[in-house]
Amino acid sequence: MRINAERLHESLRELARIGATPGGGVTRLALSSEDRAARDLLRRWMEDAGLQVRVDDFGNMTGRRAGAQSGAAVLMASHIDTVRRGGRFDGAYGVLAALEVMRTLNDFDVTTRAPLELVNWTNEEGVRFEPAMLASGAVAGRFTPDYVYGRTDWDGATFGDELARIGYKGERQNRPGPIAAYLELHIEQGPVLEDAGLPVGVVEGIVGITWSEVTVEGHADHAGPSPMGLRRDALVAAARLIAGVDEIARTVEGAVGTVGRIAAEPNVINTIPGKVTLSVDFRHADPATLDTLVASLERLAREIAAETGVTMKVDRFWTSEPTPFAAEVVAAVQGAADELGLSSRRLWSGAGHDAKYVQDVAPSAMIFARSINGLSHCEEEYSAPEDLEAGANVLLLSALRLAGVEGERSSRKRG
Amino acid sequence: MRINAERLHESLRELARIGATPGGGVTRLALSSEDRAARDLLRRWMEDAGLQVRVDDFGNMTGRRAGAQSGAAVLMASHIDTVRRGGRFDGAYGVLAALEVMRTLNDFDVTTRAPLELVNWTNEEGVRFEPAMLASGAVAGRFTPDYVYGRTDWDGATFGDELARIGYKGERQNRPGPIAAYLELHIEQGPVLEDAGLPVGVVEGIVGITWSEVTVEGHADHAGPSPMGLRRDALVAAARLIAGVDEIARTVEGAVGTVGRIAAEPNVINTIPGKVTLSVDFRHADPATLDTLVASLERLAREIAAETGVTMKVDRFWTSEPTPFAAEVVAAVQGAADELGLSSRRLWSGAGHDAKYVQDVAPSAMIFARSINGLSHCEEEYSAPEDLEAGANVLLLSALRLAGVEGERSSRKRG
Repeated sequence: MRINAERLHESLRELARIGATPGGGVTRLALSSEDRAARDLLRRWMEDAGLQVRVDDFGNMTGRRAGAQSGAAVLMASHIDTVRRGGRFDGAYGVLAALEVMRTLNDFDVTTRAPLELVNWTNEEGVRFEPAMLASGAVAGRFTPDYVYGRTDWDGATFGDELARIGYKGERQNRPGPIAAYLELHIEQGPVLEDAGLPVGVVEGIVGITWSEVTVEGHADHAGPSPMGLRRDALVAAARLIAGVDEIARTVEGAVGTVGRIAAEPNVINTIPGKVTLSVDFRHADPATLDTLVASLERLAREIAAETGVTMKVDRFWTSEPTPFAAEVVAAVQGAADELGLSSRRLWSGAGHDAKYVQDVAPSAMIFARSINGLSHCEEEYSAPEDLEAGANVLLLSALRLAGVEGERSSRKRG
Repeated sequence: MRINAERLHESLRELARIGATPGGGVTRLALSSEDRAARDLLRRWMEDAGLQVRVDDFGNMTGRRAGAQSGAAVLMASHIDTVRRGGRFDGAYGVLAALEVMRTLNDFDVTTRAPLELVNWTNEEGVRFEPAMLASGAVAGRFTPDYVYGRTDWDGATFGDELARIGYKGERQNRPGPIAAYLELHIEQGPVLEDAGLPVGVVEGIVGITWSEVTVEGHADHAGPSPMGLRRDALVAAARLIAGVDEIARTVEGAVGTVGRIAAEPNVINTIPGKVTLSVDFRHADPATLDTLVASLERLAREIAAETGVTMKVDRFWTSEPTPFAAEVVAAVQGAADELGLSSRRLWSGAGHDAKYVQDVAPSAMIFARSINGLSHCEEEYSAPEDLEAGANVLLLSALRLAGVEGERSSRKRG
């Protein structure tokens, strides 16, 4: 049994028209009118596939396909909101591949033992309403409904009002689950699979992330009359730290470290920067290693401060703990990939996904499909059709392994 | 003969009340109502000192004290406009010390051989109307009247309209000069004299400045899924260049190099910077050395680009040539300092001053008074009263050396 690749690609193309950008990408911010149009299309497709559709109090859409047994379902989920000028596959691929699994099971007239549910999570990206993964986090109990409804966008519009406006404010009892197991298929958004020449990856967990804000204070002087030996240049000191963050991460297997944001003051051409603030993002699968990375940063900051006469303050202000996935679900994914004869590798997701929060409440794992050039959150994001097909087939066989098959080509749904 | 220090300090205090800021500084932008009030006070003081006051077509105010001879005058000049929340002495000190010289000559009933002129240049700072040193540049022929009048501030107000509004649009024939010699007394705005323990400096010239814009292009990827070995991080490459600019400047005697401005894109915490732009300001007294400094920058940029896989473009977009002052005027200043028994040293100004443009048309030099902590263009700018007094006495004796003394305590102005 394999999915219908052409049908999957056609659905991806059709959904990508909603919010399509001139550059070939998609802008479909959470709870926007484009999101509503995409949800309406998805609801129609789910209903056409015979799924029983329900919408919960956060706008999460669930389409249920009954199994031979009632009760806890195997979930296949992702999201259809996007960042601004994002790609066509980020999120949408996971949702439509799950839909394709449902359609394929219909084609082959398969009854699974456990029910299957397709879930479209609201506001995964967190671009319009921070933080990301808001609605899956709420279902997992990380955020209260009041917190979720009160999130505001740049115009002051609240999540609650916008959810009602687009007609997707449902009932609490319609939340996804109970969940027997959770699968999330996603494009990799990184270059690892491409670099290794592999179509799919078996995701063992989501790395921990820790964010620090570094404040460097030197002395803002006129760039002319200040001899080099009498300066306390905050940017020169910050530059050493930036290079150091890169070195620290390179020396630790599996770690990444990034200075993404920098601001200098007064930031004018003829004044020595007196103050620099910068962000440091460290990621690793092991929480103790995260602590070690930050400790190395703090030590380096002290050294640079002592040598250059600036002050450096490292404020570790946020940490998202690593999330190892459930061994049995990871094994099901690995088994499915092997069954398909696909070369694959185990890897950890460097980015957050709804699966992170779902793992709080149910055994979960993810499947990655190869990205081209590692591009993500941009219009140039791309994955090859055959890799998208391979990932969807892994999702299909993983779901069958987890849900169990009661009957195939039975007469239950015929005649 | 010495200046009256208490009278100088009192005038500085009184002028500093116009545009005084809560933090102890001054905001008196060019052609603002505060500038008008300060000009009105200065005009009254000049008239009270018996000077013949005239205003030219750029608003430059000249107060002339007749000499035994007519014709070319020795000028003592600076400016009373300030930056936002600037210091009390930047500019104002040079103007009021020149006024104090005039008052002292009156006290001692001295007639100089050449006439003396006190000049308050319009819009030296260039904060409201770019570029800096606009009116002295115009008098020196660097800028046309149309160019000057058309300069606009952030509200779209033009120099010409604002000059007329405050009532200081005078006549072309009222420009300063003809100039026999030009003296400009200013606070150092840097730490060199303080570091050397000297009250005054004899300024031999104004360094050349060259500005380059460096554009670094790497690849903006998600900070999570991008392993260190597969990145092209524009900020890490830029950090190496920033450290390199500092090193390049330190290896060249008398050079300074500053990266004052930096911008990263997209400048968000969880994305590898794909693009960084930064400014490089090099200064040196020798134009060939300026070229060498930029060549070193370009070589370093090529090396970093080759090693890291980013592209680096260096655009040298502006150069202000070095301005050596006139040996005879520098010698007069040195002679005055020596006559006063003041320890001093020769130095070059790292910042621009009106003297740069006046040197185009007349022999010029500057005198620096010691700054505390090298602070400038901020409310904390400070120079000690005794250093301000010392600098003013150097101005007095330099002017007498250049103008010559015809008679002292003569009966010319008595009875």
